[in-house]
Amino acid sequence: MAHRVVVVGGGFGGLQAVRALRQAPVDVTLVDRQNFHLFQPLAYQVATGALSATEVAAPLRAIFKRQRNVRVVLAEATGIDLERHEVLLSALPNGDEQRPLPYDTLVAATGSRYSYFGHDDWRPYAPELKSLEGALDIRDRILGAFEAAEVERDDAARQAWLTFVVVGAGPTGVEMAGQIAELARDTLSGDFRHVDTRRARVLLVETADRVLTAFAPSLSARAQRSLESLGVTPLVGHTVVAIGPGTVSIKDGAGAVEDVPARTVVWAAGVTASSFAGRLAQAAGAELDRAGRVTVTPQLTLPGHPEVFALGDMVRVGDTLLPGVAPVAMQEGRFVARVIADRVAGRPAPQTFHYRDKGNLATIGRSRAVAEIGPLKASGFPAWALWLGVHIVYLIGFQNRLLVLLRWTGSFLTHGRGARVIGRRATGASGRPAGT
Amino acid sequence: MAHRVVVVGGGFGGLQAVRALRQAPVDVTLVDRQNFHLFQPLAYQVATGALSATEVAAPLRAIFKRQRNVRVVLAEATGIDLERHEVLLSALPNGDEQRPLPYDTLVAATGSRYSYFGHDDWRPYAPELKSLEGALDIRDRILGAFEAAEVERDDAARQAWLTFVVVGAGPTGVEMAGQIAELARDTLSGDFRHVDTRRARVLLVETADRVLTAFAPSLSARAQRSLESLGVTPLVGHTVVAIGPGTVSIKDGAGAVEDVPARTVVWAAGVTASSFAGRLAQAAGAELDRAGRVTVTPQLTLPGHPEVFALGDMVRVGDTLLPGVAPVAMQEGRFVARVIADRVAGRPAPQTFHYRDKGNLATIGRSRAVAEIGPLKASGFPAWALWLGVHIVYLIGFQNRLLVLLRWTGSFLTHGRGARVIGRRATGASGRPAGT
Repeated sequence: MAHRVVVVGGGFGGLQAVRALRQAPVDVTLVDRQNFHLFQPLAYQVATGALSATEVAAPLRAIFKRQRNVRVVLAEATGIDLERHEVLLSALPNGDEQRPLPYDTLVAATGSRYSYFGHDDWRPYAPELKSLEGALDIRDRILGAFEAAEVERDDAARQAWLTFVVVGAGPTGVEMAGQIAELARDTLSGDFRHVDTRRARVLLVETADRVLTAFAPSLSARAQRSLESLGVTPLVGHTVVAIGPGTVSIKDGAGAVEDVPARTVVWAAGVTASSFAGRLAQAAGAELDRAGRVTVTPQLTLPGHPEVFALGDMVRVGDTLLPGVAPVAMQEGRFVARVIADRVAGRPAPQTFHYRDKGNLATIGRSRAVAEIGPLKASGFPAWALWLGVHIVYLIGFQNRLLVLLRWTGSFLTHGRGARVIGRRATGASGRPAGT
Repeated sequence: MAHRVVVVGGGFGGLQAVRALRQAPVDVTLVDRQNFHLFQPLAYQVATGALSATEVAAPLRAIFKRQRNVRVVLAEATGIDLERHEVLLSALPNGDEQRPLPYDTLVAATGSRYSYFGHDDWRPYAPELKSLEGALDIRDRILGAFEAAEVERDDAARQAWLTFVVVGAGPTGVEMAGQIAELARDTLSGDFRHVDTRRARVLLVETADRVLTAFAPSLSARAQRSLESLGVTPLVGHTVVAIGPGTVSIKDGAGAVEDVPARTVVWAAGVTASSFAGRLAQAAGAELDRAGRVTVTPQLTLPGHPEVFALGDMVRVGDTLLPGVAPVAMQEGRFVARVIADRVAGRPAPQTFHYRDKGNLATIGRSRAVAEIGPLKASGFPAWALWLGVHIVYLIGFQNRLLVLLRWTGSFLTHGRGARVIGRRATGASGRPAGT
């Protein structure tokens, strides 16, 4: 029987690990609780109606149709038995009880989620962009808020529907805030008869003293100016201290708290590792850091368990903290595949993972972006074109890639967003959007 | 103040009525409980993963952005006060209590839904294709069934996951059955490692003695042969007598009942008018037929209420029963708009609606269709090309039309279906698909 590799998680890291094992004489099982790979950097485009859900989601079975040494299992990994070399799974898709999945080598790549600063009670009022479900929820809420504003007769209540708060000014928060502002000022302008959507306020709340802290301060300043020109109000040095139905409480640098009437909040701050990281750490007696990441060796293995790899947002490599971005996970996935292939072939395997930083990109809106590639800094249209190119190249699945490019071109020329559909769950029979 | 026209329902009929009023000196309010127009003839493409939800749904506000005499209200019409000339609405999108919407002329175009032969308890086991929500539910169930079959070790249980029952062999049922068969035989073949998706059974149950009863018997026979060559088993002269979790009971022409183990059922039979038809009939003392349709005058008005029009699937015009297809509703919508415009202008208005039958089209699968245009009958590729052309021309919203054409071309060339995404609602955290 061939060496059994189980990969848990079909995100960027897991996908690269599986792909890089295509020539290796191993049997790969890819476990994911969803049947698709989400191209997460574009989830915000779904949340603002520019792309449809299926354009940023590629079916895992389609991706690996031709890689004959892979099988895909739709299940959630709920635990691990390090002694017996088994992953515990949730109920199978046919409803059967879980049966443990045996492995010779395990690759854990389950990613991260948002922590809500420990306030899980904020979650219902402030959906996040990590999942496709979250992105669709946000789309329903944003579009529903404009519908509610259209029929609202009270001025103050209408302004609360037209106030959008984005929490966290990393790349996701910046992109989200920029897109909401564009939606209000541009796409939706003229769609409504009573409400002037251009009166929408978009607040971008960030605890640090600047937006996009992963970039050089000069680029942060440019991004901030771009956001302002789009109509976003960046509140740097501010912290969200409470979120309730209809109100967000924001503390400024001096400690004063303002209650902002706002019906729509998007969460994009405070990442924490997925719970599988905790289960791995517990099983192996490994360290977990404050953000729930399990500490792995420089070879990305669990201490004391060279047959268990972990990578991406869920790990900390010794004392180094690599940024929680797709390129890190992808390089780690390829590294792990190489180690596995070398071991199976009896070759000496590399001992230490080295991250090659190829640069940093963030987009703010149409023709607005910032880029940092080594010593090079760019902003405006060149950075945006670069961002577009990189994202299209990395969009997995050719058919999707072409369609997304076409739709973007169309959106760019027409200022339209074709996917402005509010789900039935949100409007329901009563016409009441979610979150009200 | 301009003459106030309220149109209830943004389907084919309502949309045409609103559009045809664009030059008239009237204020139009379009009421719909959803913010989009669903291109229902393609809903089955969403249900089988060929198109994404947003490709068959066009935002109503985008459609009417440039028609300045229209406003769109997102709400459900819950009743009517014929004396006060007011439509009663459900809660508004901002959560406010309903306030009645006054009209000078009302156009009711709320369409139809499936009746389940009076067995509403079957509904949870057999979703229908009338709504986008239903189509997405069916997509999750069909794809989830193959996932369940992949992990099922018991042969009989696996075959139940691989058995799909489509109830009703009108155009929707025939298209659906053909597409499920293609999905199993073609698109998914090779995606799975354990299960042979080509062993899937697709049963198409129809009470009448042939499929597509709206067509000539010779075309029904051709359609049936096409279905059989795709791997569908048409059970004409059969009736579904019970649906439970995992079993469908089917009675044959001789009265014998067989319990077929099947985990996935799609409902496409027994149309009934929307409940708003009943409310209109009750308010006006008008007749309702067995299928819940309100009887209207030849001018499509409610008897005794020339200011209230009703059209499409929800009406019966005197003793005539027109087919429940989009062209009827569209022609009726344009007729009603003309009557309204003539009346407002003080011109004599046409008294009698005449339906111009331009033919009948149904598709079965790639390159397979039947068409009947007056005395002309066609089948195979020519009919399919005609079907494709007609549907693309009528797809509202240019951007969508182009994208759908491209995706179809892509699907046709690659046999792929890009939108094979199972929603979180279906798989949930437990990996358990809906309907299990």
